[in-house]
Amino acid sequence: MEAEDLTETVIGTEPIYKGRVVDLRVDTVRLPDGREAKREVVAHKGAVCVVALQADGKVLLVRQFRLPAGKALLEIPAGGLEPGEEPDACALRELEEETGYRAATLRPLFSCYLAPGYSSELIHAYLATDLTQTQTHFDDNENLQLVAIPLEQAVEQALSGGYEDAKTIAALLVAHRRMAQ
Amino acid sequence: MEAEDLTETVIGTEPIYKGRVVDLRVDTVRLPDGREAKREVVAHKGAVCVVALQADGKVLLVRQFRLPAGKALLEIPAGGLEPGEEPDACALRELEEETGYRAATLRPLFSCYLAPGYSSELIHAYLATDLTQTQTHFDDNENLQLVAIPLEQAVEQALSGGYEDAKTIAALLVAHRRMAQ
Repeated sequence: MEAEDLTETVIGTEPIYKGRVVDLRVDTVRLPDGREAKREVVAHKGAVCVVALQADGKVLLVRQFRLPAGKALLEIPAGGLEPGEEPDACALRELEEETGYRAATLRPLFSCYLAPGYSSELIHAYLATDLTQTQTHFDDNENLQLVAIPLEQAVEQALSGGYEDAKTIAALLVAHRRMAQ
Repeated sequence: MEAEDLTETVIGTEPIYKGRVVDLRVDTVRLPDGREAKREVVAHKGAVCVVALQADGKVLLVRQFRLPAGKALLEIPAGGLEPGEEPDACALRELEEETGYRAATLRPLFSCYLAPGYSSELIHAYLATDLTQTQTHFDDNENLQLVAIPLEQAVEQALSGGYEDAKTIAALLVAHRRMAQ
């Protein structure tokens, strides 16, 4: 069976909701075997996440309350693309907004879907180095806590189930390998 | 600042949609500083994903069309929890349904949120070994293609941006480390 045999063709769409972070629609698709099915699709404009590595070998993490999880999670800095914004620019902007650090070097790690069964969100992961602290409004941001821990320790935590966020686990492990090359 | 200072308290909720895979609601929250904000929440019942390793060192991957991505993706086997279903049982069931293999040994790798900014989906990742092929209806499943590739090769692909799915990248890398221990 060839890959193209898997394709589902949209034959109808029902808009449900347009929001600030996500939209929701229900598509009707034609399956490869000719049957029809419904697909709930959460439309998201895309995002970035950043493994920001300081010269002292520490990686920057942010703790923030995540309502869908019902608790605060420790994650790498991340955020959504603004309309028309390139992922690289978004990565630098979000890093500075969330941590107060600007990166002089940005390397792409991977791009992946987070929940492709229902969400269109594609996230672009980066490794950021050559950081300098800037005069941002970081101190005004009461919804984030900045944490800096050695990359080796963060990798150990990622490998042992210490982080509860998929992009954080994936990006830390890929970045660690990239640094070793 | 202590972690508890980050907590957002729900003071109102507006149900938007109840679906088969996801529900959508918009919560109003009280922020730590006393202000109010809206939070779009995609409610999901949770899921599992499985790194299934054959005796010959090959890992089982499934290719399936993902409408939100607009294309087929290569992922580790995964699926949603049924009502009342334990994650372990779900992992064994989904593995067999999607690949036709039953696992005699199942080890938890990690549990994480996939998109905690808006989705409540918590996914439980497992390493499955001691596989035996069963008489399932796998051949009837025209929406999946089963692929078996050496774990080392899958890990290299995960590290070099070859997979476009966060759980697949994270779970392959954590499973690889677990096998090396």
